[in-house]
Amino acid sequence: MPVRSPVIVDLKFIPEEVDDALQGAFPGREVINLADPVHEGRDLSGVDYAVVWKSAPDLFSRAPDLKVVFSGGAGVDHVLTLPGLPDVPLVRFVDRTLTTRMSEWVVMQCLMHLRQHRAYEALARRREWRELSQPEAADVTVGIMGMGVLGQDAARKLVVMGFKVIGWSRTMRVVEGIETYDAAGLDGFLGRSDVLVGLLPLTPETKGIFNRSLFARLSRKGPFGAPVFINAGRGGSQVEADILECLDDGTLAAASLDVFEREPLSPESRFWGMPNVYVTPHVAAASDVKALFAHVEEQIARFESGLPLQHVVDKVAGY
Amino acid sequence: MPVRSPVIVDLKFIPEEVDDALQGAFPGREVINLADPVHEGRDLSGVDYAVVWKSAPDLFSRAPDLKVVFSGGAGVDHVLTLPGLPDVPLVRFVDRTLTTRMSEWVVMQCLMHLRQHRAYEALARRREWRELSQPEAADVTVGIMGMGVLGQDAARKLVVMGFKVIGWSRTMRVVEGIETYDAAGLDGFLGRSDVLVGLLPLTPETKGIFNRSLFARLSRKGPFGAPVFINAGRGGSQVEADILECLDDGTLAAASLDVFEREPLSPESRFWGMPNVYVTPHVAAASDVKALFAHVEEQIARFESGLPLQHVVDKVAGY
Repeated sequence: MPVRSPVIVDLKFIPEEVDDALQGAFPGREVINLADPVHEGRDLSGVDYAVVWKSAPDLFSRAPDLKVVFSGGAGVDHVLTLPGLPDVPLVRFVDRTLTTRMSEWVVMQCLMHLRQHRAYEALARRREWRELSQPEAADVTVGIMGMGVLGQDAARKLVVMGFKVIGWSRTMRVVEGIETYDAAGLDGFLGRSDVLVGLLPLTPETKGIFNRSLFARLSRKGPFGAPVFINAGRGGSQVEADILECLDDGTLAAASLDVFEREPLSPESRFWGMPNVYVTPHVAAASDVKALFAHVEEQIARFESGLPLQHVVDKVAGY
Repeated sequence: MPVRSPVIVDLKFIPEEVDDALQGAFPGREVINLADPVHEGRDLSGVDYAVVWKSAPDLFSRAPDLKVVFSGGAGVDHVLTLPGLPDVPLVRFVDRTLTTRMSEWVVMQCLMHLRQHRAYEALARRREWRELSQPEAADVTVGIMGMGVLGQDAARKLVVMGFKVIGWSRTMRVVEGIETYDAAGLDGFLGRSDVLVGLLPLTPETKGIFNRSLFARLSRKGPFGAPVFINAGRGGSQVEADILECLDDGTLAAASLDVFEREPLSPESRFWGMPNVYVTPHVAAASDVKALFAHVEEQIARFESGLPLQHVVDKVAGY
């Protein structure tokens, strides 16, 4: 039996979770976990595989012989922007748990805005028992930009919760039970969206797409008086100066942001303290690390037995 | 055409919402809205119908000739405990919007506990960007006590969101896709419930059912380390001194309470300020007042044309 190539693991996740998940992972194969200082400066040439999330920029120069690169998440912009990306397959992580976790977060955010959670928290702080006039989910249209695996799952679950849901993608997608729009239909889509959910990959075309001009075209007929912006895609798709300005001047009523132009979000950012903004630290769909390694093992097994890899990224489209 | 009996409206809701909903309601029939001071002291004898939510205790002595009493909500304990309840049909409010609103609240509470919302809010207040270890919905079993219309709808939606769901009712109910327990199976049900959702009517049998002895039998194997208690049924079903004690000593990890032994909840209550308790002022499933009046109009039309009333309460069972 030939010696099996080691696997480089370079994941900026919670270190203890990576360690736990590595117990028993990649049987018969060395794991080089770059979080372990013992590997500092180690020669990584001759290694075939790397599983990465926000690697240091010297990864590909240190490991020049990679045959497959695996992203630790659904997004791959963090890999595509690394210097010296080799011309080998880049495989994204598609997984049931990643999808259901994202929908948990998106549905929770939509419900917290719908049910005026922050207003009730403010009343509770004042120990004040008072009912607020309450629209129901059916009074609210949620528009989802990005109707891939994640967008479709969130859409389906929002419909079950009673929301009206519409979807948008660059190229038209037919999704059962959901009215969808493509690039040419953007204005019509925005004009109907009381809540806008961003689940777009970061590509040259989506960079800065969530800006004042787009927010100004959203529906203002919903029960919140002004639209709500929710982003769990990529921070690079949003113009944060515009979001702040639109929250200040009432173009937006509220926001939920899991992603930011620069992560970690600076302690100086105004977003942290705003009464109508929910901030979470890029955790909407944290990868289940055990599931990630199982997925990588499966794909390596396919690759080594000559089967085609699955979930290979189109590096030109960027997703 | 005979003169149509007036309708007494005595709803402790948001007054403006009742006024709005009364526009155009009960055509051809006088509406006596007791919130209007003009009706103070008015003789209500000879009136056939009353729509009530938390009436003053003298309602039935003032209106001795009622033929049907309509509850303004799904619960009827507020009527059953009024002095002098006449021996006439008591009709509860069953409505799509009431059901979907309740499920919005229940699913939101389950998701906020699952996704550690309060912990992330605390991090945000400290402007701290930090990921917490995150179980997924499939790691959590939600046990629902009370599997009527509301409980079944919440169960179905929690399943869609990925939670494991089990149900309990006094008498066995078969619910497609949900494992259910009856009175004899209570211990087995509790031992599996990581999150307990109360959607029980208030009856002599459910009074004080949510007490230390019951909380102590809940599962402690869930990802939160201790069970979570969520109540949107009736405050009279819970023993608040026990809830506080169990939160203090770790028997319970957290709670979401929409209902209380005495409403409004006293400003002195410790619940308002607890970091692991969500308090809302009995608004989980606020009745849509327009839908309520449409339902009452429909039932009156049935009654006056000799058809049987629907949603009539069994006053002995209490629901």
